[in-house]
Amino acid sequence: MTVYRVNPELDLVLERTVDVAPELVWKAWTTPELLVQWFAPKPWTTTSCEIDLEPGGRCNTTMRSPDGDEYPNTGCILAVEDGSKLVFTSALAAGFRPQLVEGGFPFTAVISIESDGNGGTRYTATAMHADASSKKQHEDMGFLEGWGLTLDQLVEVVKSL
Amino acid sequence: MTVYRVNPELDLVLERTVDVAPELVWKAWTTPELLVQWFAPKPWTTTSCEIDLEPGGRCNTTMRSPDGDEYPNTGCILAVEDGSKLVFTSALAAGFRPQLVEGGFPFTAVISIESDGNGGTRYTATAMHADASSKKQHEDMGFLEGWGLTLDQLVEVVKSL
Repeated sequence: MTVYRVNPELDLVLERTVDVAPELVWKAWTTPELLVQWFAPKPWTTTSCEIDLEPGGRCNTTMRSPDGDEYPNTGCILAVEDGSKLVFTSALAAGFRPQLVEGGFPFTAVISIESDGNGGTRYTATAMHADASSKKQHEDMGFLEGWGLTLDQLVEVVKSL
Repeated sequence: MTVYRVNPELDLVLERTVDVAPELVWKAWTTPELLVQWFAPKPWTTTSCEIDLEPGGRCNTTMRSPDGDEYPNTGCILAVEDGSKLVFTSALAAGFRPQLVEGGFPFTAVISIESDGNGGTRYTATAMHADASSKKQHEDMGFLEGWGLTLDQLVEVVKSL
């Protein structure tokens, strides 16, 4: 099993415990019909989601701004440990094809979902970057606030199931 | 199993049949002590090789020019189908961390090793690119000639085992 080495100089980490079961958090991340309900921080919305849940599979979403502008994101699934870990990157598209990220930076996300031993989930989302300036750019875009807010939305969605 | 879709507009493909067994071709690709003997087209040499043969594992080589200048290359293993397929990329470093390719282009290589039904190997090396200009740049650098030449060297090395 690959070890993901967090580098504080390069990476951003959101770590939280939430009071919903790990199985539901996994389901929210891997079921497109659920993901579109929580993935964008409101008032943004997610208008489409395609996930092929295997290494090399596509991992595509489209977000819509409050003004109605659409922003497609394409990526590639790198690793799937059923129920516990999902790894994807924007450095590659489906089938592991490299893709260029115009005017931005590529990142790899490691979503780690573990039991907190008390019915809830210990949730860790790590964004790995190539260099410190990519990390800073992502941080300044509000990664921690945004991913924290969408985690709250995820919890709300799965509680309503 | 991930399907690798070759796109003639974006990809370069070297396809050859060689008269050595698939097991030996696989061994030459996955054993650092063998890889350094054939990986660089002579008179270039390969001075080091580190491969962790699992998804997320490192895939690093250093080449030395005839003038003695060293060129390190880092990459990441994406997929391993034992004995038959090896996929790695220069868009990521070990642990799936994105890496920026300065003054160049990232590519993903798919090495396919099959029996030719006659004791030899049907060998296909595909280089996948993000765009047509990356393909052209790789082509102009002599991808097909270089990878063909090093395949000859690989055959020579494994015949001497």
